[in-house]
Amino acid sequence: MTKAMRAAGALCVVAGLIFLVGETRNISAASRAEKDIRDVLDRQVQAWNHRDLEGFMQGYWRSPDLTFYSGGTTVSGWEETLARYRNRYQSAGNEMGTLEFLDLKIELLGSRAAFVRGRFHLKMSSSEPSGIFTLTFRKFADGWKIIHDHTSTATG
Amino acid sequence: MTKAMRAAGALCVVAGLIFLVGETRNISAASRAEKDIRDVLDRQVQAWNHRDLEGFMQGYWRSPDLTFYSGGTTVSGWEETLARYRNRYQSAGNEMGTLEFLDLKIELLGSRAAFVRGRFHLKMSSSEPSGIFTLTFRKFADGWKIIHDHTSTATG
Repeated sequence: MTKAMRAAGALCVVAGLIFLVGETRNISAASRAEKDIRDVLDRQVQAWNHRDLEGFMQGYWRSPDLTFYSGGTTVSGWEETLARYRNRYQSAGNEMGTLEFLDLKIELLGSRAAFVRGRFHLKMSSSEPSGIFTLTFRKFADGWKIIHDHTSTATG
Repeated sequence: MTKAMRAAGALCVVAGLIFLVGETRNISAASRAEKDIRDVLDRQVQAWNHRDLEGFMQGYWRSPDLTFYSGGTTVSGWEETLARYRNRYQSAGNEMGTLEFLDLKIELLGSRAAFVRGRFHLKMSSSEPSGIFTLTFRKFADGWKIIHDHTSTATG
C-alpha cells in the first residue's frame, strides 16, 4: 500500500465520520422537535382536563393571523378562537368533558415547521364527540405553536 | 477621508450588495414556489372541469402515504383517494359540476414545503356545494404535490 493510498483511505474515514456526525445531529434535532411538539399537545390535553381554556390556548400562536377551520367555517385570531371554545364548551348548558388526542402523526416540514394529523375524543356525561384534525406548527422564539387548525367531525 | 475609511466604506457597499442579492434571490425563490403551487391548483381545476379525475389527481402525491381527511373520515393512498372521488362524483346519479377554488392563501414553510388554505365551490345542475380546505404541499423532483388534504363543509 502506498502512502497516497493510505492518505486517501484516512481521508475517506474522516469524511465518513463527518457525514455520520452530521446525520446523527439531524436525526436528534428532528426527534427533539417531535418531542417538543408532542409536549405542546400533552400540555393542551392537561389544561383542557383541568377546565383551563387559557392554558389550552397556549398551544396556539397568539396572533390575529392564527386560523381555525372547522366544519366548513373559519375563525381568525387567537382571541376569536378562545371565544369560540368558551362559547362551545364553557357557556350555560355545555361541559368540557375529558379530552384525549389519539393516533398522533407528527411530520416535520423543515427545521422550523411541521404538521400533525390526529384524532380527538371527548368523554362527556352523556355523549362522546370525536373527530379528526390537521395542525400546522411553526417554531417561534418561545417554542412550537399551532398557526392553523383544521378540525372535522362526522356531523361537520 | 483616510484610505482606511474609504476601504471600510467600499467594504460596506459590497457587503450590502451581497445581502441585497441574497434577499432578492430568496424573495424570487419564494414567489416562484408560490406560482408553481398556484399552477398545480389551476391545473386541478381545469382537469376537473374537463371531467378528468385522473388529471385532477396529478396534483396529489402518488403514494400510499397520501392522506385525505374529510368530514371526520380519513382515506389513505392515492388510489383510494381517486376511488373516493370517482364514487362521489362519477358514479350513477352523481355529477362533477363546475369547480372553482377561492380565497387561496399559499404559505411557504421552508424551501420544500408549504400549506394552502382556501375554499371550493361546485356549481351542480341543482345545488352548489362548497367548503374549505387545508392542503399540505411538499416539493418533489417532479414538482409540488399535495401530501395531505383536509376538507370540511357545513354538512361534514
